Amino acid sequence: MNFSYKNIDNAYSLIQDQIIKTPLITNDFINKKLNSKVFFKLENLQKTGSFKFRGASYKILKLNNEQKKNGVVAYSSGNHAQAVAYASLQNNISAKIVMPNNAPKIKIENTIKYKADVVLYDPINEIRESIGENIALEESRTIIRPYDDYDIIAGQGTAAKEISEQLNKNSIIPDIYLCCCGGGGLIAGTSTYMKHKFPNIESYSVEPLGFDDTKKSLDNKKITSNEPGHISICDAIITPHPGSLTFPINLGNLKDGIVVDDEEVKRSIKFLAEHLKVVVEPGGVVAATAALTNKIDIKNKTVVVMVSGGNIDLEMFKNL
Amino acid sequence: MNFSYKNIDNAYSLIQDQIIKTPLITNDFINKKLNSKVFFKLENLQKTGSFKFRGASYKILKLNNEQKKNGVVAYSSGNHAQAVAYASLQNNISAKIVMPNNAPKIKIENTIKYKADVVLYDPINEIRESIGENIALEESRTIIRPYDDYDIIAGQGTAAKEISEQLNKNSIIPDIYLCCCGGGGLIAGTSTYMKHKFPNIESYSVEPLGFDDTKKSLDNKKITSNEPGHISICDAIITPHPGSLTFPINLGNLKDGIVVDDEEVKRSIKFLAEHLKVVVEPGGVVAATAALTNKIDIKNKTVVVMVSGGNIDLEMFKNL
Repeated sequence: MNFSYKNIDNAYSLIQDQIIKTPLITNDFINKKLNSKVFFKLENLQKTGSFKFRGASYKILKLNNEQKKNGVVAYSSGNHAQAVAYASLQNNISAKIVMPNNAPKIKIENTIKYKADVVLYDPINEIRESIGENIALEESRTIIRPYDDYDIIAGQGTAAKEISEQLNKNSIIPDIYLCCCGGGGLIAGTSTYMKHKFPNIESYSVEPLGFDDTKKSLDNKKITSNEPGHISICDAIITPHPGSLTFPINLGNLKDGIVVDDEEVKRSIKFLAEHLKVVVEPGGVVAATAALTNKIDIKNKTVVVMVSGGNIDLEMFKNL
Repeated sequence: MNFSYKNIDNAYSLIQDQIIKTPLITNDFINKKLNSKVFFKLENLQKTGSFKFRGASYKILKLNNEQKKNGVVAYSSGNHAQAVAYASLQNNISAKIVMPNNAPKIKIENTIKYKADVVLYDPINEIRESIGENIALEESRTIIRPYDDYDIIAGQGTAAKEISEQLNKNSIIPDIYLCCCGGGGLIAGTSTYMKHKFPNIESYSVEPLGFDDTKKSLDNKKITSNEPGHISICDAIITPHPGSLTFPINLGNLKDGIVVDDEEVKRSIKFLAEHLKVVVEPGGVVAATAALTNKIDIKNKTVVVMVSGGNIDLEMFKNL
């Protein structure tokens, strides 16, 4: 494997004018409560409401003219869908997106809003990968995979390049990095860059209960799938097993995996609305949840927490 | 009057290590919807959840040792209260805060959380200024006024110093500046700095219906009070009339005043939660409301919108 921080530097130089350099903020009240110094990277303020726009932009900007002409296809529960749709729209490329029919309404609506052609499927009986691959084959479209692609991993990793610059400006060296983990693209990219800039940092994946495939895989040192039969409100980071490209990177970078449950996630969403004044979706708040529930000892430590997305149905937000 | 941008530069050099340099963000979807380029200054992410922390910090850092020993007193519906309480706590100064007994629960709770001594009064039958003045006299405390004080105006104005730096970095010249207006401290300070850096900018105050005393005063070219009998959910910016120090500054800087109603404000809070992923309070969202409701023609213009605070009771937020 020759994936390194250099892939991320390259990605950043291509996408930096298309993405938002999102804020890294700290909050005195939360720091005092946790007895630590916590920096939140607000990727919910990124274009399309999540970090996914970084990877999608990079992949799309790298297409050759022939590929651009034929368009792209992606499968996603929602955040990757919106990101690919919008990055395509910005670059005048046709996009077809395969989404589960039970995806949050806001994500389906936004994907349509970005002019993508949405193909809904039944997640119980159909497999999105095969629908996507068929469309790619029949229509000569390029598949934009959600995480198992070094370009996507590099694009997502650019969030950590910004974090390191934002911390360096104040000469701050973080001790711990907490990041959500679905397929593992964001954490693979960002933990690579964090390790490059801060060699002593300890990085942890955070996953919802029942979908802690990365933790299990780290423990087993091999890709291990989730047991079936679980549900979670963290729609953005529910994946059957770690990616085959992302997992080896994560195995090399991560100290351990942390697991949080839906009730803790709900409380964190409410807490961040009240104290950080931001709107965060369930899958985007799991890393913050790990810090807020003391799932890991962060006392007197400097901690970077990835807030990865904010695409929550307002109806659900209200009910919390 | 010798208030100028230099007061603000001085304030910034004293408080810059105590405040948060809040993000200035833009959003493609909103820009497309409004057919303009809008930059939101997120002072809801400031310490204590509003811009008020800037002025309070400056005033408190300027106290002499005798004054610091005797402590301070402030009267406020909430955001100034929290700001004075927290700036005092950070500098080991005793703070007494006079608050109306109908202030939002979150604001009273936070003020107590910051260890201030809270004195509640009945806003129907008592006058907060006289309660505050009496406490100051009896306990030799320094009054920290919410807006009618050049140091407070200068402190609040530092938000615009940051805005101008954030815009300059991308060589952007704004055409229009929209800012909420209660007593007028924030807009007096920030419009002074905006005018200094961008001489052609057009600045507008935005107020809630029934509390548009600054608009009326601008129209009449003299301080004019609100008619009694109105109510509004915009608790943070309800004042009887413009300040005697702030109004002359605003008369010199502002092109006009804009008025929005509570229903428009409620829709904007919901809209910003959905599209900007931020939690904003009613008084903090009026400037955004003016832009979103086309109360002013911003087509093809570059607009700076002040988002001044986020201290909304979650119960109320939910009910929107």
